[in-house]
Amino acid sequence: MADLARDDAIGRVQAATESGWSYVAWSGEAVHALEGDPFGGSATTGPELRLDDVRLLAPVAPGKIVAAAVNYVSHAIRRDPPEKPELFYKPISSVIGPGRQVVLPDDADIVEAEGELVLVIGRRAKHLTPETAAQAIFGYTCGFDISARNFQRADRHFWRAKGSDTFSPIGPRIARGVPGPDVALTTRINGEVKQQTTVGEMIFSPLELLVFASRYITFEPGDLFYTGTPGVPPGIVSGDDLRVDIDGVGALTMTVA
Amino acid sequence: MADLARDDAIGRVQAATESGWSYVAWSGEAVHALEGDPFGGSATTGPELRLDDVRLLAPVAPGKIVAAAVNYVSHAIRRDPPEKPELFYKPISSVIGPGRQVVLPDDADIVEAEGELVLVIGRRAKHLTPETAAQAIFGYTCGFDISARNFQRADRHFWRAKGSDTFSPIGPRIARGVPGPDVALTTRINGEVKQQTTVGEMIFSPLELLVFASRYITFEPGDLFYTGTPGVPPGIVSGDDLRVDIDGVGALTMTVA
Repeated sequence: MADLARDDAIGRVQAATESGWSYVAWSGEAVHALEGDPFGGSATTGPELRLDDVRLLAPVAPGKIVAAAVNYVSHAIRRDPPEKPELFYKPISSVIGPGRQVVLPDDADIVEAEGELVLVIGRRAKHLTPETAAQAIFGYTCGFDISARNFQRADRHFWRAKGSDTFSPIGPRIARGVPGPDVALTTRINGEVKQQTTVGEMIFSPLELLVFASRYITFEPGDLFYTGTPGVPPGIVSGDDLRVDIDGVGALTMTVA
Repeated sequence: MADLARDDAIGRVQAATESGWSYVAWSGEAVHALEGDPFGGSATTGPELRLDDVRLLAPVAPGKIVAAAVNYVSHAIRRDPPEKPELFYKPISSVIGPGRQVVLPDDADIVEAEGELVLVIGRRAKHLTPETAAQAIFGYTCGFDISARNFQRADRHFWRAKGSDTFSPIGPRIARGVPGPDVALTTRINGEVKQQTTVGEMIFSPLELLVFASRYITFEPGDLFYTGTPGVPPGIVSGDDLRVDIDGVGALTMTVA
């Protein structure tokens, strides 16, 4: 048993525990079971695991998911960049982990996969300042904001366009700390690069997003913040392979059912 | 110890238990502590409690909150009634229970209190039909959908207009079963009646809302569904007393800080 190291990446696996799952920590290539709650700051590492013996889950079960609608100039091609963060919520029922399939509703006929950097909150936080916002960030992971454009056009709100079941894939693990401006994000569909950016190209930085949102809402440990997508998101259809890579996190891969 | 009766109303109280709170059941005027999870269907009633000895909490801690934006013809005064439910999400961080105060953000300058009937989900549910939807409803309670109109006008989404902390008061308890068309809802501000309707005046009934939403999203036990507000919601300012009454539930009362 040892304290969790500050640079260990965090995930969750299906395991033969009482609760059916366990947090894990990667230290280099070695993966250890975690005892305690890493978001509570008191986790210790237990026995080493073979990844072949367990199944990766979404690295956290969030209480809520906040998302930025337009946060890269390269994505604001049909409009002016926003003057303040434009935020919305995704429901926790839309979360899936690595290796699970995105399942499109029968009547979703124009669907895109927005690759995104996703912040993971580490502590209860309200009224954050530019000085305190970094302390509220536990780390960051890869995510897709799956978006059905025909719903987006038909509805006033994004509830099914971006909130249908399986529309919030995240993982495979959480890198600790605050993502720097040089952290790169790359989205591939069937192996072909479709989106490529660095965090520094965001209109509102991770810290600015948190400062603004926390004027109104309280964040809790494990909450997620999708930070927006760059460029033109790729269309996806049944059978496609999706992949998003983020520096220091690794690759989240999945298929469309 | 006895099984929970089908017509008992359910609530939650702050109590001297290990978890800090306990579910309770009202059977007429008597209030009993509950052991087990009433949403799991296996709760039994324990010792009788004096309400003077405990503090009422929000009757459930939901996993997600779905809400209907326009669901009474009397509220659709500036537009045609919608042809399908127009839904959005409220974050769980906005929930408060009876007796707590609504706290307005500094820059919220036009705020209204929408009195609403709120459905409480009783089981995991997807792809409900008109025949199965009633079985997914655990019961219903009173709620306010607090709405800051200046945010609603300034933003593309309702995230802070209807999702700021304290903007989702619910309670005081959950009446079991499916609300019938004659169930009445009355909203008062400082004792004056401001909204009055029956459930039967909804554009989409509770069952129709659930059938439509569950085509896309999975409901879990304890999830909430705000069913919309009638007429013209009253404006509120600091110091106001809010009250919403629903037949068979009772009155949810609170003040604006």
